[in-house]
Parts: sequence; structure tokens; C-alpha cells
Amino acid sequence: MSAAHPTLEAVAAHAGVSRATVSRVVNGTPGVRPELREKVKRSVAELGYVPNSAARSLVTRRTGAVAVVIAEPETRVFADPFFARQLRGISRELSANDLQLLLMLVEDEADYQRVGRYLAGGHVDGTLMFSLHVNDPLRGIAAASGLPTVFGGRPWWPGWEDDASLVYVDTDNRDGARQAVRHLVERGHRRIAVITGPLDQTSAVDRLAGYCDVLDVPEPDPALHAHGDFTVDGGARAMAELLDRSPAPDAVFAGNDLMATGALRTLRARGLGVPDDVAVVGYDDLDPAAWSDPPLTTVRQDIVRMGEIMARMLLEDLNEPEPKARSVIIPTELVVRASA
Amino acid sequence: MSAAHPTLEAVAAHAGVSRATVSRVVNGTPGVRPELREKVKRSVAELGYVPNSAARSLVTRRTGAVAVVIAEPETRVFADPFFARQLRGISRELSANDLQLLLMLVEDEADYQRVGRYLAGGHVDGTLMFSLHVNDPLRGIAAASGLPTVFGGRPWWPGWEDDASLVYVDTDNRDGARQAVRHLVERGHRRIAVITGPLDQTSAVDRLAGYCDVLDVPEPDPALHAHGDFTVDGGARAMAELLDRSPAPDAVFAGNDLMATGALRTLRARGLGVPDDVAVVGYDDLDPAAWSDPPLTTVRQDIVRMGEIMARMLLEDLNEPEPKARSVIIPTELVVRASA
Repeated sequence: MSAAHPTLEAVAAHAGVSRATVSRVVNGTPGVRPELREKVKRSVAELGYVPNSAARSLVTRRTGAVAVVIAEPETRVFADPFFARQLRGISRELSANDLQLLLMLVEDEADYQRVGRYLAGGHVDGTLMFSLHVNDPLRGIAAASGLPTVFGGRPWWPGWEDDASLVYVDTDNRDGARQAVRHLVERGHRRIAVITGPLDQTSAVDRLAGYCDVLDVPEPDPALHAHGDFTVDGGARAMAELLDRSPAPDAVFAGNDLMATGALRTLRARGLGVPDDVAVVGYDDLDPAAWSDPPLTTVRQDIVRMGEIMARMLLEDLNEPEPKARSVIIPTELVVRASA
Repeated sequence: MSAAHPTLEAVAAHAGVSRATVSRVVNGTPGVRPELREKVKRSVAELGYVPNSAARSLVTRRTGAVAVVIAEPETRVFADPFFARQLRGISRELSANDLQLLLMLVEDEADYQRVGRYLAGGHVDGTLMFSLHVNDPLRGIAAASGLPTVFGGRPWWPGWEDDASLVYVDTDNRDGARQAVRHLVERGHRRIAVITGPLDQTSAVDRLAGYCDVLDVPEPDPALHAHGDFTVDGGARAMAELLDRSPAPDAVFAGNDLMATGALRTLRARGLGVPDDVAVVGYDDLDPAAWSDPPLTTVRQDIVRMGEIMARMLLEDLNEPEPKARSVIIPTELVVRASA
């Protein structure tokens, strides 16, 4: 190799470290002390060392990329600030380790097959998967790919609780819902309704469970339960349904802020005051929650951090021949504003 | 190969077509008649044929994936419905050809280097790039990767007009702006202000040029020009600036619907009527344009179709050893509603 293409050995000599250390820094392998890492990076920059990706890939089976697979159509992924926050956390952490994020959305059967082929094809080092719906095939795809995988959100496929290699991160949806409903009970509300998101998703199911916990019922009173779909329009419709029943609720816990915003819209249209006629609590603490009229009492979940932790757990597993099953549940927190 | 792993030849025999036809269908190469394509797909399904991606990749240099590279932070990509529509069009077209879409966002220098390495690493067959800002390095990355590339939006790097291999798709921003401003002139408005998006983007520059065309000026009267940044808040601030000047404008052309919505907010807060005191025209025809109060007169651009055409042009070029420079400019159309 000519001087114009410095070798790994040249970088090691220049930095005064071992060849293995340079290799670990260049390949983004954790476990190198920050000072050494900095030293190597300076030498790489000064010498203009360019790692040969193809050769690197053969030796370390590293492509330098991580796939983020979301089982939702792009219309929903792009309309829901939840995913933007997740990706901010994930990409922050991956970038810091010089890994490239590849986003793949899957919707129908053909998408699943195609993504499965790509992941099994050796083009990425690991995957982060958002398996939001019961029985979606992401678990099978992850297993078939043989890649280390971290799931976002509590999974719900058959046998998930006994899965010996399942790694996932979630926020504490059930406890967040408990805090929200407990707040309404403490404020003296007695007819507390619930607007749920799609009940094939664990986040919606777990929030409903938290509601039931506080009211000490096995399932919601049908007269106080309306289905939304995590959208503003769904929340508006659900609120209208609840108001058309008698007696009407004096408070409502909406499973996310978008539905809570829709509920506020319906209440305004009917000339009802919030919180005096009907108190409203949302979930998520998205930016618009603070700007709504009245500002929304809601449950804050640190979604950016959830993304960071997912990425960090995957980084750990990239170097593990047999990753261990484990999970991280991030606490949630009630934010009290004017709506309840 | 055992019967459990049927060969390409077995599929050809089953479908009653040539080996080459099976190969083209399996590899997503265009140019096979729909009936034949269907026949082959049925045989592939019946026999359970699984193409060997690695072997396929060696022979055809095909990975089955296309990278979509957007030079914007994820906060903006996810907040702007423009990109969701683009991706809907792109993914529709790629899916129909069994190609996997990989989304990559690039923001800082390290991202550019990393994406450049990935693209040059043989992990994708082609790229679709959104180079929105003057002088961003996407052109260089595309060239270095050696991959067929289609750009979204008129590029603006030095020498782009003489680039012998440049392929791009855009909507007719300049003519759309002309239609908008001509409409205001025809309605008798005389002090027509303009709120521009970031002027390091060709879409913002071209819309401003259309405004100047109709008013027959080389550049906008500074008294009638305010800078927004394609956001609601930016539009609200720009409208406030314009109203604080004297005499105030009697109409405003905002470079996109988000800024127009912000302008409406400011006008409402100042107690001014739209369109009687100040007429407002937006650009984009996003869904909220029709719901705003009053509904927004705006310029419709078919963004989903733009995405489809980008993908289609790339599909053509995947089989071209030397793709030819060409561009498609999609017409835009004024949509008249109550705001002007």
C-alpha cells in the first residue's frame, strides 16, 4: 500500500497504540477508553486513513449500519411525533458510534418478505424494531436474520414472555395511566370515561389496564368507554359518542394527546367547559399539549431517551455472541396543566 | 440443489418461460410483459423458490434496495408533510418492483461521510436524493458511490446546469408562484407582499422568481418582502413585520401553506379580515389548507406523483450503463378558496 493510503498499522504506530485498538475504534466497537479513542481518531484524521469497508466487513462482519424497522405505513409514521422523537434518540446514539441508521417501514406481506431478505443479506449489523401490533411477523424476521435486535415497546406475540433472547425497551404505560386516572379521582371526578387507542397495540392495552387498576374494575364500564385510533379525529368522534350517552362523563382519560386534542375540539363545539364540565387528561406530553386551549394535563414519557436506550442496548449486543434477554421500562410522570 | 430448494431453471420450466425471463422478474428488471410477470410470480410462489440474494448480488450487482437520502434533520423531515407524500409515492413505486426503500437522513459532516461509505459499500442498487440546500455535498456522494441517482428538486450546486449525468424531478415552482400572484393582481390587489422560505433552497428561490415575474421587477420591493422559514411561527412573525410597515400590504403570497397559516394567525390576532383587509395565498395544498379559517387559496403540487416519477426514472437507470441527463418538471395548479 502506498503512503497515500496509510495502513491500520501506520495509524497504530502514529497513535502509539496497538493495532487491535485502532481496529476497535475504527469499527465502532465499544470498550476503548475515551482518551485512547480520541488519540486514534486524531491519528486517523492526520494520516487521512480510510478504512476499507468491504475488507472490514469480511473481517468483522460489520457493515456500519443499523436498520430501524417500523411496522406502520408512512402516513402514520410521519404524522405521529412519537416516531420523530424515537428516531432522534436512536440516531443521536448511533451517530456517536459512527453507525448509519437505515429506516424501513413495513406494511404488507410483500414488505415483510422484502425486509426479511434484506436483513438476512448481510447489509446491516443489527436492527431496532417497533413491533406495535399483536401477531405482526417482526419477531420471525428478526430471528431469521440472525441479527442482534432490540424491540421498542412491550411485544405481544404468543410466548413472548418466555422468549430467551428477547430484548426490549418500553415506557411504563400502565403506571402512567394510573397516575392520570388517580389525579382525576383525587379531584373528585366520579364518572371518568376512557378513550382508548387501537387495542391490538400494547401501549393502548397497558394504558387501559392502568385505568382499570385505579377504578378497581376488571374491564371498563362500556358506558364510559369509547374507541379512538390515536388520531385527533378519532378522539373527537369518541368524545361525541361519550357525550351522547346519559349520564355523560364528568372527566375523560384519553390514551394519547392527539385524541385528547380531538376531545377538546368536541367539547368546545358543544359549548362545554374544560375542566368545569368535563376534565380531560391526555398521554404523551407532545409539544401541542402545552399550547392547546386549555393546556393539557397529560403523562410525560421520555421518548427520546427510550430511543437512546434502545440503541445503547443494541451496541452492547453487537459484540455479544449470545445476547441475553432483558428489558428496560422507563418511568412516566404526570404533568398537571389546566385541562384537569 | 435438492428439490426443497428449487432452482431458477425449475421455475422457468414450471412457468413455461425462458430462464432470462425468470431472472428479470426475480431481479425486478422492467420490460417483462405483465402476463408473463404474473405467470413467473405464480410459479415462484408455488415452488417456493427463494432467490439467493448473495449469489444474485454477485451476478447482477443487485441488492434489492434503494436508498432515499434526505439532507434534513429528522425533526424537520417528520414535521413536514411534504416528505411523507414524497415517500408514499416513492415507496408505492419501489414496492411494485419489489425493491426495498431505505431512508437515510443526513445532517452534519460525519453523517455525510458515513452515508457516503455505506452507499459506496455495495449495499444498495441506486439512490434518490433530496438535495434541498445550495452547496450540500450530496452530488459528490452520489458521484463517488457510482450508483444511479435521481435528485428530487432542482439542484443548485456550482455547474449543475452542465452536469452531463444529472437526473432530477421537480414541480414547476416558478409557474405555480406566477399563478398565485397573477390571481391576486386580477382581484385588484396592488400592494402584494411576499413571505419567502429559506433562500438557500431552490423551491423558495423559484417561487420568489415567479412573484417577481408577474410584478415585472428584478427583485422584490424590500418593503413588501419578509423572510419566513417554511414554518407556521416563521409565517406569523413575517406577517407581523409586514403589518408594522406603512403602508401595509393588501395581499400576501406566502411561499408555503405552513407560513400562510401563520400569517392568518397574525391577521386574526390583529383583528384584520381575510380576504377583505388582506388577501392570503399559500403554496402546497396540504390537507390543513382546506380546513383553515378562512380556507386557503393555494398552489397544488402533486408531490406523491413526484415521488413516483423519481422512483420510475431510477428504475429505468438501474439497467442503463450510462444514464442520460434529463429532468421532469410537474405542472402546478392554483386552487381558489376563500382566503383570496
